[in-house]
Amino acid sequence: MVLQASALLNVATPERNKWLKGKSIVAISQFDPSGTAYTFDVAEEYREIFADNRRRLKEILFAFQLANLFFEPSTRTSSSFASAMFALGGDVISINGVTYSSMEKGEDLIHTVLTEQEYVDAIVLRHKDVGSAAKAAGRLGIPLINGGDGEGEHPTQALLDLYTILREQKRINGLTITLIGDLKRGRTVHSLTELLLSYDVRLNFVAPEVSRMPVHIIEKVKASGVPYQEYTDLHEVQKTTDVFYMTRVQKERFDSEEEYNKVKGLYRIDMAFMAGIKSDAKLMHPLPCLDEIAREVDVHPNAAYFRQVGNGKFIRMALLAMVLGQA
Amino acid sequence: MVLQASALLNVATPERNKWLKGKSIVAISQFDPSGTAYTFDVAEEYREIFADNRRRLKEILFAFQLANLFFEPSTRTSSSFASAMFALGGDVISINGVTYSSMEKGEDLIHTVLTEQEYVDAIVLRHKDVGSAAKAAGRLGIPLINGGDGEGEHPTQALLDLYTILREQKRINGLTITLIGDLKRGRTVHSLTELLLSYDVRLNFVAPEVSRMPVHIIEKVKASGVPYQEYTDLHEVQKTTDVFYMTRVQKERFDSEEEYNKVKGLYRIDMAFMAGIKSDAKLMHPLPCLDEIAREVDVHPNAAYFRQVGNGKFIRMALLAMVLGQA
Amino acid sequence: MVLQASALLNVATPERNKWLKGKSIVAISQFDPSGTAYTFDVAEEYREIFADNRRRLKEILFAFQLANLFFEPSTRTSSSFASAMFALGGDVISINGVTYSSMEKGEDLIHTVLTEQEYVDAIVLRHKDVGSAAKAAGRLGIPLINGGDGEGEHPTQALLDLYTILREQKRINGLTITLIGDLKRGRTVHSLTELLLSYDVRLNFVAPEVSRMPVHIIEKVKASGVPYQEYTDLHEVQKTTDVFYMTRVQKERFDSEEEYNKVKGLYRIDMAFMAGIKSDAKLMHPLPCLDEIAREVDVHPNAAYFRQVGNGKFIRMALLAMVLGQA
Repeated sequence: MVLQASALLNVATPERNKWLKGKSIVAISQFDPSGTAYTFDVAEEYREIFADNRRRLKEILFAFQLANLFFEPSTRTSSSFASAMFALGGDVISINGVTYSSMEKGEDLIHTVLTEQEYVDAIVLRHKDVGSAAKAAGRLGIPLINGGDGEGEHPTQALLDLYTILREQKRINGLTITLIGDLKRGRTVHSLTELLLSYDVRLNFVAPEVSRMPVHIIEKVKASGVPYQEYTDLHEVQKTTDVFYMTRVQKERFDSEEEYNKVKGLYRIDMAFMAGIKSDAKLMHPLPCLDEIAREVDVHPNAAYFRQVGNGKFIRMALLAMVLGQA
Repeated sequence: MVLQASALLNVATPERNKWLKGKSIVAISQFDPSGTAYTFDVAEEYREIFADNRRRLKEILFAFQLANLFFEPSTRTSSSFASAMFALGGDVISINGVTYSSMEKGEDLIHTVLTEQEYVDAIVLRHKDVGSAAKAAGRLGIPLINGGDGEGEHPTQALLDLYTILREQKRINGLTITLIGDLKRGRTVHSLTELLLSYDVRLNFVAPEVSRMPVHIIEKVKASGVPYQEYTDLHEVQKTTDVFYMTRVQKERFDSEEEYNKVKGLYRIDMAFMAGIKSDAKLMHPLPCLDEIAREVDVHPNAAYFRQVGNGKFIRMALLAMVLGQA
Repeated sequence: MVLQASALLNVATPERNKWLKGKSIVAISQFDPSGTAYTFDVAEEYREIFADNRRRLKEILFAFQLANLFFEPSTRTSSSFASAMFALGGDVISINGVTYSSMEKGEDLIHTVLTEQEYVDAIVLRHKDVGSAAKAAGRLGIPLINGGDGEGEHPTQALLDLYTILREQKRINGLTITLIGDLKRGRTVHSLTELLLSYDVRLNFVAPEVSRMPVHIIEKVKASGVPYQEYTDLHEVQKTTDVFYMTRVQKERFDSEEEYNKVKGLYRIDMAFMAGIKSDAKLMHPLPCLDEIAREVDVHPNAAYFRQVGNGKFIRMALLAMVLGQA
């Protein structure tokens, strides 16, 4: 059963057909509510065809090629894009890790992408430097998708996160969404917050003092008019939250192990915590997850983080088809 | 020309059609003679189609995806599964080595496979920990194939080994099979021995004292009624063996270099040795092979170890099609 | 618009259809002018189909498999072969870097290629040892393509270089071609020089004293009758050259940093240099390029090195189809 994203969100998507054709996806700010809803509609359409007759999808990007250019390791993101490309019938050239890149011989990023451009139709780039995706996209004649540029952006993650909220709750407007963990440096929480500001939501930011949401994001929230509140203890919003978006509290951010030990219990979700949340509240996480969620929670029906992974595949199928002019 | 495995083995395969559909392959004990013969029949059928019109095979797993999840390097096994999947029309996501796994960030095996499950239809897992395959398979909703779990099992290797014996000798019953080398720690010799116990064979175990077949395997052999004998000198069975299954004697198992040097000549096969074997005896090896077989033996017609590699591709084609419900 | 290579070169290509079928490509000496022209004709035909309806190309190597066996990292060459194979509908098994090769366990090159031979239809080999490709090809029953063997050969690079000259200048005969940089150890300049000796060209070799073209190549040039001259300053041939073939002057070849600093300016191309060349002269480079060409030159219309990369894809498509008997 298809979820009608644009209808659920009450957003029109006029003239959105092929609006991303030939474009790069560098920042989440490229996605207004209409563009976002269109993306979700395409993802849902592919999901339905996939369930019904996945062979039909293999026609969509048949004879197209994607380069998965990962200068940092990321099994999850590279697998997700590869699987999405394969599902649509395309081929993938995987370049994982500097060890077998010609960067070893001193070549720079721009020459590497200009070279790959001669082979493929689109590039997914993961690179540790903030701004690298924008810089590379500016030189290319083919679409580039930012697969994470250091502490910069990871726009496809933000889209799959919002899509997961919509699929899990069948709405976005009216929800109370709580972001937890290292809000200072987490690019996923920054991009997701930015994306959420276009909707009628309430935001909670739960973080230790040393990892609070940075001022420039808080300023954007204020400017948007979206109500928000900051907390240091997750339990304060346990019963009022519709979507918990968990990330790791990183030990290395604290001055001492004692400091860390003092707060870490405030940012850990276990079965006892799950027993006290709203019956339809959902738990998300961008993964990888260490011990901030107890492993027994994995099988809790309200734990949505593996469904979130699966949603990523359909979002990336949609985005690949869109930048390649097929949707 | 197709070899009718089930007929040659005089084994019925009733109700075996799709018997592995949706199941994981973790241990060789899942394969009784009937299941084994069915697997060989499927492998032979694919071999015949491959020779005749390989394009037809590309329909079988079209639009299916496999993750080759290798936490330890293994060119041979990962290539074999990839080639098998491609031959049947499927796509492969290759994750080779920890360097670009999110395990680097501290993620555990279970989360890694639960993540990949959202992308693909089956997973091949190679991992250094005994029991890792069973543990992962127990959590998955898709089939997992054990591609070797440390000193544990490597069931697809045992199947391809038995299949090679059958193809080379056109029978299994009545054969004298000699396993040579490090029988203590070799998972391939353990799995193959276990598989052979269902047939009317005679087994020779040839190993230095420090590397003898472990008691728990010997107990299984005794219980099966299969006749066996242990040796320390390969030459004692040179003239009576139908199939030599060679593995490496590992230097590091010996107390001193002198100890090792004393015995190593007893476990090396060269052209002189080959001249003294039965005219239709065959030499197998799971590879990689260092100096336990002289390189000039590679081209001896009775050296079957590269044909053995090729047989692995067809066995894995059969197994992939079976777990994915297509055979 | 198709470039008729054989017509432009005024070379007949009788009985060239499938002349490379089943053969390995180890050395550039296998390509006489007729074989070279035939290769270019196939590359051009594929280029035209690619532009017109690339889906048709996917039939050509459908159900064929290639192993990309790279013992040294090379993003460019491995991507190029992979992209070529995908464009023709084939599958690729990528083995990049020793870390996940069974060589780690001590296996030698010959056993590695004999193993891969059981899985695939052709092998591309990159290996640091001179002669490794010839050695491996001599043992294989399937075609092997030399993707660079240390300071030995890199025949597909020489072919794509010559093809680029032809595409850029619409002729080869009559051109003045200047090779620049480390001419002593550069396998690409050696192979390209050898290939050029069959044509009516004039060659300039521009190198520091320590990196001059080796005597055995100079002897071949002399024997061919092709006029040549050696220089140490690139500016001497700035106004008379039709094709500049730039390579790096390697700092580590010099006795001291002062020695290096004295000459390096003589081997660097910037916009000022480009302003003084013939209006239709072209600049090529096998890449990767460090600082021997100023980055602002990348967008100069006469800078042909990224088009050169793209030409490599079509040359490799042609060669793969040829060795696999499809062209």
